[in-house]
Amino acid sequence: MSAFQKLVEHSKKVSNFDHLASIVGWDQASVMPSGGAEARSNAMAELDVHIHSLMTQPHLSDLFAQADEESLSNQDQAVLREMKRDWQQANLLPESLVQAQSLAGSKCEHAWRTQRGNDDWAGFEKNWAEVVNLSLEEAQIRAEASGTTPYDAMLELYEPGTTSASLDVLFADVKTWLPSMIDEAIEKQKANNILLPNGHYPAEKQKALGLEVMKLLQFDFEHGRLDESVHPFCGGVPSDVRITTRYDESEFVQSLMGIVHETGHARYEQGLPKSLAGTTAGQARSMGIHESQSLFFEMQVGRSQAFVEHLARLAANHFEGPEFTQDNLSKIYTHVEKGFIRVDADELTYPAHVILRYEIERDLMNGVIKHTDVPELWNEKMKAYLGLSTEGNFKNGCMQDIHWTDGSFGYFPSYTLGAMYAAQFMAAMKQTVDVDTAIQSGDLSPIFTWLSDNIWSKGSLFSTDDLVTQATSETLNAKHFKAHLESRYLDK
Amino acid sequence: MSAFQKLVEHSKKVSNFDHLASIVGWDQASVMPSGGAEARSNAMAELDVHIHSLMTQPHLSDLFAQADEESLSNQDQAVLREMKRDWQQANLLPESLVQAQSLAGSKCEHAWRTQRGNDDWAGFEKNWAEVVNLSLEEAQIRAEASGTTPYDAMLELYEPGTTSASLDVLFADVKTWLPSMIDEAIEKQKANNILLPNGHYPAEKQKALGLEVMKLLQFDFEHGRLDESVHPFCGGVPSDVRITTRYDESEFVQSLMGIVHETGHARYEQGLPKSLAGTTAGQARSMGIHESQSLFFEMQVGRSQAFVEHLARLAANHFEGPEFTQDNLSKIYTHVEKGFIRVDADELTYPAHVILRYEIERDLMNGVIKHTDVPELWNEKMKAYLGLSTEGNFKNGCMQDIHWTDGSFGYFPSYTLGAMYAAQFMAAMKQTVDVDTAIQSGDLSPIFTWLSDNIWSKGSLFSTDDLVTQATSETLNAKHFKAHLESRYLDK
Repeated sequence: MSAFQKLVEHSKKVSNFDHLASIVGWDQASVMPSGGAEARSNAMAELDVHIHSLMTQPHLSDLFAQADEESLSNQDQAVLREMKRDWQQANLLPESLVQAQSLAGSKCEHAWRTQRGNDDWAGFEKNWAEVVNLSLEEAQIRAEASGTTPYDAMLELYEPGTTSASLDVLFADVKTWLPSMIDEAIEKQKANNILLPNGHYPAEKQKALGLEVMKLLQFDFEHGRLDESVHPFCGGVPSDVRITTRYDESEFVQSLMGIVHETGHARYEQGLPKSLAGTTAGQARSMGIHESQSLFFEMQVGRSQAFVEHLARLAANHFEGPEFTQDNLSKIYTHVEKGFIRVDADELTYPAHVILRYEIERDLMNGVIKHTDVPELWNEKMKAYLGLSTEGNFKNGCMQDIHWTDGSFGYFPSYTLGAMYAAQFMAAMKQTVDVDTAIQSGDLSPIFTWLSDNIWSKGSLFSTDDLVTQATSETLNAKHFKAHLESRYLDK
Repeated sequence: MSAFQKLVEHSKKVSNFDHLASIVGWDQASVMPSGGAEARSNAMAELDVHIHSLMTQPHLSDLFAQADEESLSNQDQAVLREMKRDWQQANLLPESLVQAQSLAGSKCEHAWRTQRGNDDWAGFEKNWAEVVNLSLEEAQIRAEASGTTPYDAMLELYEPGTTSASLDVLFADVKTWLPSMIDEAIEKQKANNILLPNGHYPAEKQKALGLEVMKLLQFDFEHGRLDESVHPFCGGVPSDVRITTRYDESEFVQSLMGIVHETGHARYEQGLPKSLAGTTAGQARSMGIHESQSLFFEMQVGRSQAFVEHLARLAANHFEGPEFTQDNLSKIYTHVEKGFIRVDADELTYPAHVILRYEIERDLMNGVIKHTDVPELWNEKMKAYLGLSTEGNFKNGCMQDIHWTDGSFGYFPSYTLGAMYAAQFMAAMKQTVDVDTAIQSGDLSPIFTWLSDNIWSKGSLFSTDDLVTQATSETLNAKHFKAHLESRYLDK
């Protein structure tokens, strides 16, 4: 057996334990009774330690050196490249740092759940200082190994190949037109008369409607399920994808579009190349590309007039009321409003929330600012981008997100990268696919075939740049995103 | 750290992986979509290999030798004894035999699923020959190590400390009175007019009723759940016990009493000593004691007049119809009928099915008979014990059970041992607890306190014999079981 084949076998072994971690993780989030938490945490921690020990076995170093000398096909070279990236990342940090981060992150996140409600920045700041310091240490180690800036080294964990230099250009572009576009859209929507949900919408009926929408989106129920959890997510494994949603019986807006969003993530997972299952190259390309699929489903398809017509039609099987007309649903799902909270933000204001976070975490990781500078910077940027002040308002300001509490610096850009990729994919798709007709017909297969051919079936065989260029004949830019937003919100 | 403490730490580590195996096993049986099967099998097999490698680590041998020399409390000695038993059993068989058994068992079981329906003994016999031969090999290795007969060595896997010498005595006793008692009970019930389920009983309502019954039985929902699966079982871990049932909408009898049965298993698990969690001594004592708890709930409590009154009362919250009166439910749940199929058998005929299987598997493992002798022996014994011929009727004869298809020889006695233990526990309990009054009152706490004090909280700290003697002041015998059956079925 060649060194390369041995590495593939090893990768499949690790992947089997990752499978277990995914399933028990889903279980913990969606069905586990509260009393099971302690034993489960112990079991999951034991599994993490085991996976880490597999990833850091000393003999892998020799195998990678040998495999580099072997004559491999182009595809096998890509498989090797991705396995190596994974291995290098797992071996970079000293065990003591990983443990310290895990402890500090758990402590900070746990306390944050109470501190946020109490607007207790002083209390949070104490725990967070340690989290930030450890992340700075991590970023430094990663930067030295990769020869990049500390922030770029963190970004690499979520968006391989993406740099802050490229993000700076993309986001600078967005910042030139987004604030005025938001104002214009709000002005334009002033006369809109929206009927907001105002009744009792039983969870059971919301679920039945959600399942119909998933069917329309060709979710493969032989290889996945819909369940419930407090924080909706897409988990499981490609052969068994678990998406979740949360039903609030006083409204239906969130769960319905949430299901469309998670179905996008799920179909990407379900569509990954089976021949590469168990290898890193068989996995999703990046967080941004993953988000591009959920946002393609949610924003490009889900909020289109043609799709909202389906939503209205299917909703009528379960609910009645004037709030369920196509016109009203469409207004609900394209309503623009400046707000403090990212997770409640609409499509148009969302990038402002992300760019603000990106600029702060970039400067924080690069040592340009200190963690104590964050509240003031947050306030300044919120005023500049959305005209809202967060002075002294921590819970609706810099303490609102969970991401930074455990040191996940470098993740936020993925959201807006996803939105941009999605718009660019749609523009390219429209060159060869009559998208509106496909949606109207109720058979969306041509759309999914394009996505499968260009994105899903590629796994991580290509760099993000190559993937996007092959699919759209250009590198990522903000042009299509802008055009999409202008068309939807300004009727341009 | 002492060698003993190191062994306890190792045991907890293994237990963490067992936890993962239990949860993904539950997932596979109750919620996994069919398309997830292949990847799941691979992941579970990988986990099995890992657990086995942990159990056979070479340094354990030294640790056990050292621990034997350490000065330990009585309880720690019991903990050590149980860890050692587990370790010895895991290390006894050569890897090649375990693998051959796994392959032959899977092949035989898989083919059996079709062959049974086709009454294809000839086809089944070919695969089964290999399974039996490998089990004979296993039994021989185990017998040599323990100095017992081959069958007793297999029995030890399910019922530590129980021998066929003792089973022969117990079952010989039962055989003297059971056949005539069955005839007498059937004669006595001839005039009974039973209203069988005859309508549509929606799964949702059956579930709601089941949950109410579980509440009455004080199932701890903070540490467990009720779900569905094709073959009902009790799984999960003590802090998170997962029971399942199957809803047939054309009747309610099976799911309702099935839930009572599984709740008995579950409360045993939930009641195991938390201070010993993660060690073998903190686990259930044996399959027979486990079954004694499910049968205590189902047979001793569940089919009592006082409990059936609760069932009728709770059923009225969800269903209506003359089939739900206390009198009719009681008749349904104590109806005696001679039949071919063990899993459909009533309380009174069930032991006949078990004794028949015990006698055959004992002689098969001890080399007294060959596997090709089984159909004829089955027919003879069915005629002798239940007056039914299975000549040429394999699917309702020796091909009906799954147990032997993968070589689980030694398991069957546990069912009737459980029934006997349950009757003996009830007789002892009644010395100090007013059981009928407790059931009637709807607060069954005194019953559960007795079970917790005498059985659940003991884990595997004592041998089965000691456990039973401490709880009932006598060793296991058939007297209480006989008295219970006479009282219920012959009004004696």
